[in-house]
Amino acid sequence: MAELRKDPIVGRWVVVNTENPYLPNQFEIKPFEWKGPQGCPFCYGNEHLTPPEIEAISTNWRQPNAPGWTVRVVPNKFPALRIEGNLDKQGNGLYDFSNGIGAHEVIIDNPDHFKGIAELNNWEVECILKAYRSRSLDLRKDTRFKYILIFKNVGAQAGASLEHGHSQLIALPMVPKNVKDEVVGAHHYYEFRERCIFCDIIAYELEVKERIVLETEEFLAFCPLSSRFSFEVWIIPKEHLTDFGVIDDYKISVLAQTLKEVIGRLKKLLGEHPYNYIIHTLPVNTDVHFGYHWHIEIMPKLIRIAGFEAGSGFYVVGTPPELAAKLLRETTL
Amino acid sequence: MAELRKDPIVGRWVVVNTENPYLPNQFEIKPFEWKGPQGCPFCYGNEHLTPPEIEAISTNWRQPNAPGWTVRVVPNKFPALRIEGNLDKQGNGLYDFSNGIGAHEVIIDNPDHFKGIAELNNWEVECILKAYRSRSLDLRKDTRFKYILIFKNVGAQAGASLEHGHSQLIALPMVPKNVKDEVVGAHHYYEFRERCIFCDIIAYELEVKERIVLETEEFLAFCPLSSRFSFEVWIIPKEHLTDFGVIDDYKISVLAQTLKEVIGRLKKLLGEHPYNYIIHTLPVNTDVHFGYHWHIEIMPKLIRIAGFEAGSGFYVVGTPPELAAKLLRETTL
Repeated sequence: MAELRKDPIVGRWVVVNTENPYLPNQFEIKPFEWKGPQGCPFCYGNEHLTPPEIEAISTNWRQPNAPGWTVRVVPNKFPALRIEGNLDKQGNGLYDFSNGIGAHEVIIDNPDHFKGIAELNNWEVECILKAYRSRSLDLRKDTRFKYILIFKNVGAQAGASLEHGHSQLIALPMVPKNVKDEVVGAHHYYEFRERCIFCDIIAYELEVKERIVLETEEFLAFCPLSSRFSFEVWIIPKEHLTDFGVIDDYKISVLAQTLKEVIGRLKKLLGEHPYNYIIHTLPVNTDVHFGYHWHIEIMPKLIRIAGFEAGSGFYVVGTPPELAAKLLRETTL
Repeated sequence: MAELRKDPIVGRWVVVNTENPYLPNQFEIKPFEWKGPQGCPFCYGNEHLTPPEIEAISTNWRQPNAPGWTVRVVPNKFPALRIEGNLDKQGNGLYDFSNGIGAHEVIIDNPDHFKGIAELNNWEVECILKAYRSRSLDLRKDTRFKYILIFKNVGAQAGASLEHGHSQLIALPMVPKNVKDEVVGAHHYYEFRERCIFCDIIAYELEVKERIVLETEEFLAFCPLSSRFSFEVWIIPKEHLTDFGVIDDYKISVLAQTLKEVIGRLKKLLGEHPYNYIIHTLPVNTDVHFGYHWHIEIMPKLIRIAGFEAGSGFYVVGTPPELAAKLLRETTL
């Protein structure tokens, strides 16, 4: 019989297929159809195909908008939101509106068209994380912004429109609903117990050991008990830290290692597959919630489901997180 | 500039692309790859390929599990949940669990392998809706069940694993999170204003007229102001009704017409495309919430995004609902 499990943070129930668990080879994952670097706006020499860069990380002096960078941050060419103008929030009858003030940036992970997080070296992954941090710190100076959403889509099935490895950042003048649910849920728990729910989850997972993927000095990688997706992995700092934006250099280097290792193991186990990761962190320019704890959620997209779950809030997980964690623990690169 | 809009029921913000609206021909919709009826367990003569039927609608007397039916309801061969056993809810540390008690049924819409809702006649669509109603009324007798989720996935990209037209029903021992958010949101509004928020939305939409697709004697079909998906359409009874399960025969016949007309227009405008619909209705065997109002949400899946939105709660809508509604109003079958 399957098992129903309730997420203690947001109250979501999921159905875990404990009866006939899906193994990695039972997912019909379509191989990526690589088109290659021809005309790719994220490759060296094509810098003029993107809007002018916002910042870049490079080891040597270089001209802006020219080759030589390691990570390059540019405005999204087709932004969902724009930074210019005054924030204008209004009500009309039942509804609330705001004009589309925000920022929508693309972080080009690396000059190599084909390399994903697993193929980059530690230092290159560190550079990506440093770009995330730098943009988060810069954008929050604009007090109109209340949330900085940093995420990555890999593969067309996970929403990537370009195959060259990249991440995205969206700065929003309000807190998105899912983040709010999480922050409010954690805050309720904190008010009731005076402890951070994420810290309690970490302690629980370290005690039962069933869902741990790997533990490093600073981070825990585990498959959450109430995973929504098969092989979902969370990476969380063991220390109680609320804000990804103020992560220090040492933690960045350990996080880079951890992220690369987890994504590498997922790739070795599942083959090339579409996935998303999202950095979950505290809203900015708003009240501090003591009960929050930043983390990264990695969500492989192994089945072809395009949003029924989003509409219903009803998730069926083919691979129980205990099995996923065991397989990922046993995978060596 | 884009516009941010807040859903007044659950508090979700969406970004509406009012600047460069997507037109129907700008979506890259992959045509369905029809495999045909060979070996299809939902076709006449293959009744033995499904578990024994739960009920069927037919015009003439027939043997159970034999041809001659118009709509046939069978247990899902690979159920997410099972009906046998005692409900066992438990807590363990931070988490809450339940065994996988529930029902997972498939409603085979029609014997014709290739016909969708738009191609069936009114009476055939009525029969499907009557099967939904009948199963909803039957399953709620089991007081372990708190929610009866009825939905349809069309096309592999929207999660359909079989191409023969069918719907699904899942009876759950708890209320899924998205339903709870909606019921609680509507209830808060009701407590504050002593009016149903859905009734207020209907009144508002009828007044401003911008987002109406069509209005029949009993139902309103409109594109919600804070749509998550391009060409999202809701069909809602104009009368304040909370429970789909007690819909009367006359309303079923008008609903069949309305549903067929809306899905037909979507198909004419967008071509064959993946979509989901979900019947949103009040939980069963639980407290009554005066502020709820049942309705059907139709969600075309026109872009290849596989859940980033679900993870972030951040939706970008390519076609503003005002434009979608205008195009759908102007489409004639």
